[in-house]
Amino acid sequence: MSANHRPSGQPTTPSDALRESAFLKACRREPVPHTPVWFMRQAGRSLPEYRKVREGIPMLESCMRPDLVTEITLQPVRRHHVDAAVYFSDIVVPLKAIGVDLDIKPGVGPVVERPIRTRDDLAQLRDLTPDDVAYVTEAIGMLTGELGATPLIGFAGAPFTLASYLVEGGPSRNHEHTKALMYGDPQLWADLLDRLAEITSAFLKVQIEAGASAVQLFDSWVGALAPADYRRSVMPASRKVFEAVAGYGVPRIHFGVGTGELLGLMGEAGADVVGVDWRVPMDEAARRVGPGRALQGNLDPAVLFATPEAVAAKTDEVLAAAAGLEGHIFNLGHGVLPDTNPDALTRLVDHVHTRTSR
Amino acid sequence: MSANHRPSGQPTTPSDALRESAFLKACRREPVPHTPVWFMRQAGRSLPEYRKVREGIPMLESCMRPDLVTEITLQPVRRHHVDAAVYFSDIVVPLKAIGVDLDIKPGVGPVVERPIRTRDDLAQLRDLTPDDVAYVTEAIGMLTGELGATPLIGFAGAPFTLASYLVEGGPSRNHEHTKALMYGDPQLWADLLDRLAEITSAFLKVQIEAGASAVQLFDSWVGALAPADYRRSVMPASRKVFEAVAGYGVPRIHFGVGTGELLGLMGEAGADVVGVDWRVPMDEAARRVGPGRALQGNLDPAVLFATPEAVAAKTDEVLAAAAGLEGHIFNLGHGVLPDTNPDALTRLVDHVHTRTSR
Repeated sequence: MSANHRPSGQPTTPSDALRESAFLKACRREPVPHTPVWFMRQAGRSLPEYRKVREGIPMLESCMRPDLVTEITLQPVRRHHVDAAVYFSDIVVPLKAIGVDLDIKPGVGPVVERPIRTRDDLAQLRDLTPDDVAYVTEAIGMLTGELGATPLIGFAGAPFTLASYLVEGGPSRNHEHTKALMYGDPQLWADLLDRLAEITSAFLKVQIEAGASAVQLFDSWVGALAPADYRRSVMPASRKVFEAVAGYGVPRIHFGVGTGELLGLMGEAGADVVGVDWRVPMDEAARRVGPGRALQGNLDPAVLFATPEAVAAKTDEVLAAAAGLEGHIFNLGHGVLPDTNPDALTRLVDHVHTRTSR
Repeated sequence: MSANHRPSGQPTTPSDALRESAFLKACRREPVPHTPVWFMRQAGRSLPEYRKVREGIPMLESCMRPDLVTEITLQPVRRHHVDAAVYFSDIVVPLKAIGVDLDIKPGVGPVVERPIRTRDDLAQLRDLTPDDVAYVTEAIGMLTGELGATPLIGFAGAPFTLASYLVEGGPSRNHEHTKALMYGDPQLWADLLDRLAEITSAFLKVQIEAGASAVQLFDSWVGALAPADYRRSVMPASRKVFEAVAGYGVPRIHFGVGTGELLGLMGEAGADVVGVDWRVPMDEAARRVGPGRALQGNLDPAVLFATPEAVAAKTDEVLAAAAGLEGHIFNLGHGVLPDTNPDALTRLVDHVHTRTSR
């Protein structure tokens, strides 16, 4: 069954074909037939078919219905011919699953009923078991059947970003309470992040055991920190998550926004692939991350609002900067913006495939 | 009158004392008696006396009343003993002054009635004359009388940030329309930024001629751009502003948030002092900016929500990283957050002065 024992270089079984997909090859820094493409938040509000199936169904409910998750996850694969699917969920799903009283409010984001700011508040965070997220196992089982040789990326929010929601009680521009806790009570902070690392690890294991071919750890807000604070107060927990899933051998991607100063450390934390936002050119990002890791990125999602010619030109700039990389997965520098014209995304996938076909 | 002709090293007149203030010396990279401190948004909602005088008065109206501007500008100088006052205004004031239909909505920010997206829309942007902002000249006249040897910093929004408000029609998280215009119609974009550079230059000249001892050009949102785009699409307009006021010999400060990748270019644009947010340590910022410019920064404003001990420790980290700089003005890495305890700011000024007294 292993790729090493095939007589020719061609995949012969579905699992071979999956293993030899452009996306997984790029993650492993092997030569690829074309640069693989997927988009963060590719399954979402930019698609009319998404808005249709979500109509009247609250976000958290839609994350818990395997039929809906499967349909929504497949939509962008069908429409855009991206090289990977990303599991449709939200980073607060595992917290909800262990009983944290939270909701996702439209136009606001996750709102937590009782923010975590004292040691007693930690009691809200019990262990996550596979039974807490049986709908995830079920949905991934359905998805891998449908996806065939297209890899499915599982994901979770990283401890810092989850902590920010829990401590602030919701989305925050400045993370005042989070940083007050981080700087003011380092031991409580470390214990909180360690709990979140356990929960996140358990959640990623469920996804991998159900069939996810790769995982992405989103540390959306960690770009709010300086490198010394990241190293001291965040990296140990993120590293714990990466180590917990190392044994499965699936590629581990790590991404955050505004993390130019942190790229090297985020790789060191244990990522096989480091995601880069659009502020740092890919060649400079490669210099910061160092050898031995693939990179993912980094077209500015706002570029997709410009003319098709401008999009093509900016895409070519990204490809040129990434030309010397050991492994490159094309993506946006952040999630697809809700008002993006989906046709611009379809064209973009085609453009990258055409330009990079070998 | 010149400091060079004084027989002793001590200032002998009010204008000598101003010229020899710690703030202006640090801007000129001369030895200082202590590291000077001021805070972006030091005059603002963190102060109860500010909230009191603003009660019932809309933001734009308060910016146009010289008595109020004077009182509000002086409040943090009296309370915190900062080393410089910063003129109380808003970056959209010069746009309002030339007749752009906009308002500052509480809890939202500047809202522009007719966003600028076509060549015809440029007609909204006529030249600014001193008569358009007579209240600025009057307020600065009153302020310099009150401030004596304490320098007054004038300020303006930089062309990119003003353009973002004008093109989006208000505050924007992703600047989609702005970037669509910048990438999609480079000539219209360049003309828009050039118009804004003219207006901004005229507005800064009014402030300097009225008595401002330094100016800060705020490019609040420019951190949303990659270096190549900054160099191509923004730097020419910012450079035009800095050149327009070069002849006055007052220090020119340049600041933006999330600008780690842009620090060198922002200095090259013509700044004498480059402001640094908290994501890049001061010594690394100095390396990026290069010799011949002072630096300003960079305590994370969220740190002020932590315990006094944590604030002191983080402040000492900033001072240690800045110890080798040619010129250092202590500031936060962004504006004072509205819920900041003003006592924490007063303690911070005292701490920096005590730690750095020579």
